[in-house]
Amino acid sequence: MNKHILYKFLPLTLLLTAISSIVFASGVAENIPSAIINDQQYNRAIHIMVMLLVGFGFLMVFVRKYGRSALTATFLLVSTALPLYMLVKSSGLTGRGEDEIKTLILAEFAAASLLITAGAVLGRLKMPQYILLGLLFIPFYMFNEWIVLGGGFGIIDIGSVVDTGGSIVIHAFGAIFGLGVAITMTTKQELEKTIEADATSDRYSMLGSMMLWIFWPSFCAALVTPAQMPHTVVNVILALCGSTLTTYIFSVSLRKKISIADIANAALAGGVAIGSTCADASHTMAAIIGILGGGLSTFGFAVIQSKQQKWMKLIDTCGVTNLHGLPGLMGGLAALPIIHGLNIQEQLMGVLITVVLAFTTGILTGKILPLLGRKVEAYEDSEEFLDAVD
Amino acid sequence: MNKHILYKFLPLTLLLTAISSIVFASGVAENIPSAIINDQQYNRAIHIMVMLLVGFGFLMVFVRKYGRSALTATFLLVSTALPLYMLVKSSGLTGRGEDEIKTLILAEFAAASLLITAGAVLGRLKMPQYILLGLLFIPFYMFNEWIVLGGGFGIIDIGSVVDTGGSIVIHAFGAIFGLGVAITMTTKQELEKTIEADATSDRYSMLGSMMLWIFWPSFCAALVTPAQMPHTVVNVILALCGSTLTTYIFSVSLRKKISIADIANAALAGGVAIGSTCADASHTMAAIIGILGGGLSTFGFAVIQSKQQKWMKLIDTCGVTNLHGLPGLMGGLAALPIIHGLNIQEQLMGVLITVVLAFTTGILTGKILPLLGRKVEAYEDSEEFLDAVD
Amino acid sequence: MNKHILYKFLPLTLLLTAISSIVFASGVAENIPSAIINDQQYNRAIHIMVMLLVGFGFLMVFVRKYGRSALTATFLLVSTALPLYMLVKSSGLTGRGEDEIKTLILAEFAAASLLITAGAVLGRLKMPQYILLGLLFIPFYMFNEWIVLGGGFGIIDIGSVVDTGGSIVIHAFGAIFGLGVAITMTTKQELEKTIEADATSDRYSMLGSMMLWIFWPSFCAALVTPAQMPHTVVNVILALCGSTLTTYIFSVSLRKKISIADIANAALAGGVAIGSTCADASHTMAAIIGILGGGLSTFGFAVIQSKQQKWMKLIDTCGVTNLHGLPGLMGGLAALPIIHGLNIQEQLMGVLITVVLAFTTGILTGKILPLLGRKVEAYEDSEEFLDAVD
Repeated sequence: MNKHILYKFLPLTLLLTAISSIVFASGVAENIPSAIINDQQYNRAIHIMVMLLVGFGFLMVFVRKYGRSALTATFLLVSTALPLYMLVKSSGLTGRGEDEIKTLILAEFAAASLLITAGAVLGRLKMPQYILLGLLFIPFYMFNEWIVLGGGFGIIDIGSVVDTGGSIVIHAFGAIFGLGVAITMTTKQELEKTIEADATSDRYSMLGSMMLWIFWPSFCAALVTPAQMPHTVVNVILALCGSTLTTYIFSVSLRKKISIADIANAALAGGVAIGSTCADASHTMAAIIGILGGGLSTFGFAVIQSKQQKWMKLIDTCGVTNLHGLPGLMGGLAALPIIHGLNIQEQLMGVLITVVLAFTTGILTGKILPLLGRKVEAYEDSEEFLDAVD
Repeated sequence: MNKHILYKFLPLTLLLTAISSIVFASGVAENIPSAIINDQQYNRAIHIMVMLLVGFGFLMVFVRKYGRSALTATFLLVSTALPLYMLVKSSGLTGRGEDEIKTLILAEFAAASLLITAGAVLGRLKMPQYILLGLLFIPFYMFNEWIVLGGGFGIIDIGSVVDTGGSIVIHAFGAIFGLGVAITMTTKQELEKTIEADATSDRYSMLGSMMLWIFWPSFCAALVTPAQMPHTVVNVILALCGSTLTTYIFSVSLRKKISIADIANAALAGGVAIGSTCADASHTMAAIIGILGGGLSTFGFAVIQSKQQKWMKLIDTCGVTNLHGLPGLMGGLAALPIIHGLNIQEQLMGVLITVVLAFTTGILTGKILPLLGRKVEAYEDSEEFLDAVD
Repeated sequence: MNKHILYKFLPLTLLLTAISSIVFASGVAENIPSAIINDQQYNRAIHIMVMLLVGFGFLMVFVRKYGRSALTATFLLVSTALPLYMLVKSSGLTGRGEDEIKTLILAEFAAASLLITAGAVLGRLKMPQYILLGLLFIPFYMFNEWIVLGGGFGIIDIGSVVDTGGSIVIHAFGAIFGLGVAITMTTKQELEKTIEADATSDRYSMLGSMMLWIFWPSFCAALVTPAQMPHTVVNVILALCGSTLTTYIFSVSLRKKISIADIANAALAGGVAIGSTCADASHTMAAIIGILGGGLSTFGFAVIQSKQQKWMKLIDTCGVTNLHGLPGLMGGLAALPIIHGLNIQEQLMGVLITVVLAFTTGILTGKILPLLGRKVEAYEDSEEFLDAVD
């Protein structure tokens, strides 16, 4: 009888031990403790911070006499955007508060979108206007984010728009908002003034570009699961390699000689375009999206930009239409053929709402900014900075 | 009877399984394995290395004809400080050896403090004197660290001084030590020579500043627990945003136009000032400390610096008094109202000992350095570098 | 009887619980889950990407009028190397596929070696030739990697050549391959043209150098086990500190004044030389290897380079012989006295095969590249870039 009981209990004990083992083995392998996830996301958050300040900041230094202003504006825009986003988020207006590091990353996404917008009007705002731009932009950005990704007003179901790395809500939103501001604010005088660069500012611009390129995988993989991370990261790198090679080929083909501005900008278009589908596309598709993004963007800089300027009577200082606008829209639409089981209607609705909201709120913002006056000499540090003669 | 036994053993087995589960669940969630902690700290250590070389190095490139020297000196100071700190630590003179990565981070903290000191006399030492400065500084720094944080001589209880991110023992110590050296060494000739900057060196300076800004959260959170990390990181970012915005406002208010040197330097004062309380302050308090730190620092650069030069008959090349000295002391004292249950006497004693030790050992060092001679042409690469005509 | 059973089962239950506990405790402490290892390696991969683009890229900006080209070439070389390496690897030609992030790191190692090769002929290739160089180099590099480290053809047993951080298969291979290309391609006209630098390009060069220095520990520790990481990292830092200090001393001793090019380059030789033994050397040995590496490299730049140019009738634009070639070989041979139980014959065979394969495939590549024509004006952006007058 003892033995009978033994044989009965042994399996039970083994089973329970096995269950507890499996629970914790999987707990370790898949449900990684939140303190470790926090740390992984923290490293992404710092990588993105390099993109915001050194990446966007130095990419904008290409304007020869406006380097001090471009870098100071970058500092002010980031310092306005991050606390404001976190403040609104913690107040619960746009959904419940989340983990602090995750909220920080979402705030950095908002700051990236704001810097894109600022690129469209760079050199034509005074410092207080950059701050005001940030104060106006962030609520509009969060409103769009809430509707497209957060189920706001019940228009789009949460999770039905695929935009992991932000082609739509970050890049396209920022670029189109910037166009809205530029359309409203560009003066005739500004339309006639050429934007100069020189060898030093070109190389600074390449520094910014390379920093964006390097840390782009962290931007796109910031909030994916640990299991999705490796595939996402390789996809982003393949897309960037594709756009970089294509940019060289298109630049030299369309212009006879290479434009370093094409390289510094359009090489990044693969990162913009792969944003929506970075966690889902195959490696081959990621490379193709990168190649198409780079081609589209270089064509934009080499051919469309000068025409856009005449048609739309606006100056897009950094060409954000070509780097973030067109490739961003392309990236959002690339989800249609790539993502299996995508709700196509919802995805299209997400793109459409983003375009409309960005443009209208951009125009509104362009009406408000001049209330702080106007910069007299466009693209010149000397109006606002001491000792800025060279 | 079988059943009776079954009902008796089932709870026991479940209980034991549950206990083992809880032990390991908590083991994973809180007691993160040391190999993983090591890796987390490693990433912080590399972030801090960016601050030491590119951050401090390029921030000091603002002196126009002294860029090669500033960067070479940075290389030499770091290469002297790190091995020396680790060597003394491993010899057990200042307490038992610790994990290698943790010791590396503590060595980097010492190197940061040394670079601050070097900033006070930048341009007026020859290369061998920078190395000698490092050899003298590190033991003095470690002596102060041992007394204030390590319970040395039993003067202050271990753990009673709150200085997580080093406002006191890193920033204030380095700045005041530098003042001590500068007071002893500054010549009349040097007092009359102006320090020149140009657009290129200004932008390099902004690169250094941005790199310091970006990685500052890793500096302050390098050795906090995983549970404290998110709150600490957000505090540091809020303090930096606060000081950046305030710096712009104070610079334009006090000087009519913006000084890019104010932006490059005082924007970082929030990071200095939040150092002591970064793990403990509320987010609101962190933002306020940043705002006050930025205001104090900009006031220092715009108003105090020129007066200090006359009163104290010294040149503080990089203005470390204003960036690290005053905000560092402010940060150490900010713990008084903020930290609940703080031993106020011990905290004040920690600040006082740091000030006294830094100043006296700095003056002593200033007496020793001239034994290696004197730099003839201040702020000029050409005395020591080949082909340094431009 | 019940009690009897109780005493019999209690130990059994405790034992099983204890076993399961030990299994998972060790599972957490040593067998870190692959998702966490992936993330650790991902951070290394991004650090290495900073080295590839900003590190190598800006180090090569020292050529005054060739900055746009150097940075664009860096972009194109990396964008060619990474996908090509990953494509060949996934096709299984050189062994089974591995984890995506590990493969990415191996691809980055290949790209680093390619950038070293490109440094030897920098300024004398047109853009399409850099791309062709990448397409030819990567298969040759992988062939050597397969033989020396992967057991290819059964010549060398897997694991018997010690080369953790790639002194042999990355640095020496890249440098000697570059020499092969340079010997074949250098024209008489190029031998007579001097390579100019100025203050701005010098400081960019120092930026590249510092970025390489900072992230070098991640390069060497990218694929070591978590347990080996701390020792490896400290070894690399000690070697770099050693070479940095020695470079200053040798430069000022051999040339009377410091050459900033020596500092920017030879300071890194400690990282090259410690590569093979970084996980195994003691800290003292690591510092000594760094000191010897820095001395050897500075001697190379100050004394050997001009002689090599005459003897071998070649221009090594960036001096990769002195930074990667000699210190790389030294590092590979340093394993002989340092590693206990090393198979000396296999290690020497690994070095020999690398030298022979690199040189012959380099010469072959030098014969193929001119099929795309020749750059007319060496070291000038203007031939291929728009608006590149300054």
